[in-house]
Amino acid sequence: MSSQESIHIILVEPSHPGNIGAVARAMKTMGLSKLSLVNPRKFPHQTAYDLASKADDILDNAEIFNCLEDALTETEMAVGFSARPRELDIDQLHLDDLGREVLTVAAHAKVGIVFGREHAGLTNQELSLCQSHVLIPSVPEYHSLNLSHAVQIACYELRKASLGEADILNASSKSYRKMAKAEEITGLFSHFEQTLAAIDFYNPNEPNKLMPKIKRLFNRTRLEAQDINILRGMLTAMDKCLEKGKD
Amino acid sequence: MSSQESIHIILVEPSHPGNIGAVARAMKTMGLSKLSLVNPRKFPHQTAYDLASKADDILDNAEIFNCLEDALTETEMAVGFSARPRELDIDQLHLDDLGREVLTVAAHAKVGIVFGREHAGLTNQELSLCQSHVLIPSVPEYHSLNLSHAVQIACYELRKASLGEADILNASSKSYRKMAKAEEITGLFSHFEQTLAAIDFYNPNEPNKLMPKIKRLFNRTRLEAQDINILRGMLTAMDKCLEKGKD
Repeated sequence: MSSQESIHIILVEPSHPGNIGAVARAMKTMGLSKLSLVNPRKFPHQTAYDLASKADDILDNAEIFNCLEDALTETEMAVGFSARPRELDIDQLHLDDLGREVLTVAAHAKVGIVFGREHAGLTNQELSLCQSHVLIPSVPEYHSLNLSHAVQIACYELRKASLGEADILNASSKSYRKMAKAEEITGLFSHFEQTLAAIDFYNPNEPNKLMPKIKRLFNRTRLEAQDINILRGMLTAMDKCLEKGKD
Repeated sequence: MSSQESIHIILVEPSHPGNIGAVARAMKTMGLSKLSLVNPRKFPHQTAYDLASKADDILDNAEIFNCLEDALTETEMAVGFSARPRELDIDQLHLDDLGREVLTVAAHAKVGIVFGREHAGLTNQELSLCQSHVLIPSVPEYHSLNLSHAVQIACYELRKASLGEADILNASSKSYRKMAKAEEITGLFSHFEQTLAAIDFYNPNEPNKLMPKIKRLFNRTRLEAQDINILRGMLTAMDKCLEKGKD
């Protein structure tokens, strides 16, 4: 069983079936599939399927419980989400650390990520069933995060953590491009000096006015080998036009 | 003006007014307020307000444009979002770096964060108006992220970065240089096309061979206003030489 299959998203008393569907969709985009519902007001419901956008499988397999304690049976880690700061004696986990902490446990055991009611969130009693509490850093004046959006943020953080080093290396090797060598860059700048002088854009008697700016511009890019070919090709085309003009 | 007020969330041709409302709500939870809409199918619309959950002010003040170019007027940085990997020659920005990069520019100038249509996303032409491209790391089998959920993830990353903003601003105010505006960059590329065609380095009948490479080269630099002056000056000097050659 993969770590992702050990992670259960648990919604406590969701009122709107549309939110349940939107949660299923949010989960699926980030590779999660296990949904638990505690006393959903309306479920199963067509609106949930309408908003699930082909994440129907998650709704079909959703488990329904009468209370949060039952949904948390067998979990070795339960994390309660909140958009408002709480004065509670439970460990506060930073969202940046959520992915790593959850995946470490999920490799071996069931983890529950718990979200409360749309308007009232989780009760203190429910939060106290969790070993840690995550606060989504919304602005103090407006905590009104939609339930499925809160779940999306959590699943996104879990997804980022699951993209291990191998994936990151893989992704970067695909996009690797051959960089220009130092002597190619020096050659480019000499060519710029000559051609820009020939078109009267650069005055070799005042070398400090233009060339440092051009060098800074191109050095900022981390020039690739391909870029050198393009820029020198452009300068050579200019040189040829100037030659023709002289004839 | 705070950095947050310089950041414009831009939705290109959203079909569903409910998504526009949900986007406004997502923005407000993370402290953003500037919403731009390019050709929304239905707006203003009651459904947008129904889903905005007291983020009505953002909808009331939303600006409407006919094309993305207009929405990007005056922006010094435009970031295009995508849920699918693209084979495009524009700089890919990692979501983890989005907040820092955006806030550095937003302290001084307008930034556009651009999201495409619900089903089709952004066209390649629209993405090419952006200096960088952010990929949301959804699972390869299921990219179907809801529009407002994608915006929520972006706004969440911006919010996280803004919580460390004092440090970022301190670092950036020392090194800040005025960036080129979107329309100045578009103007530069048109000028390149004309001059490079005149010197026979660019074949307008095969536009896809050279120009995307040149655009990628210069978009990777984050062009400054000064760079535009230098590059257009160089092209103008070349134009004048060609004129003389004709005499």
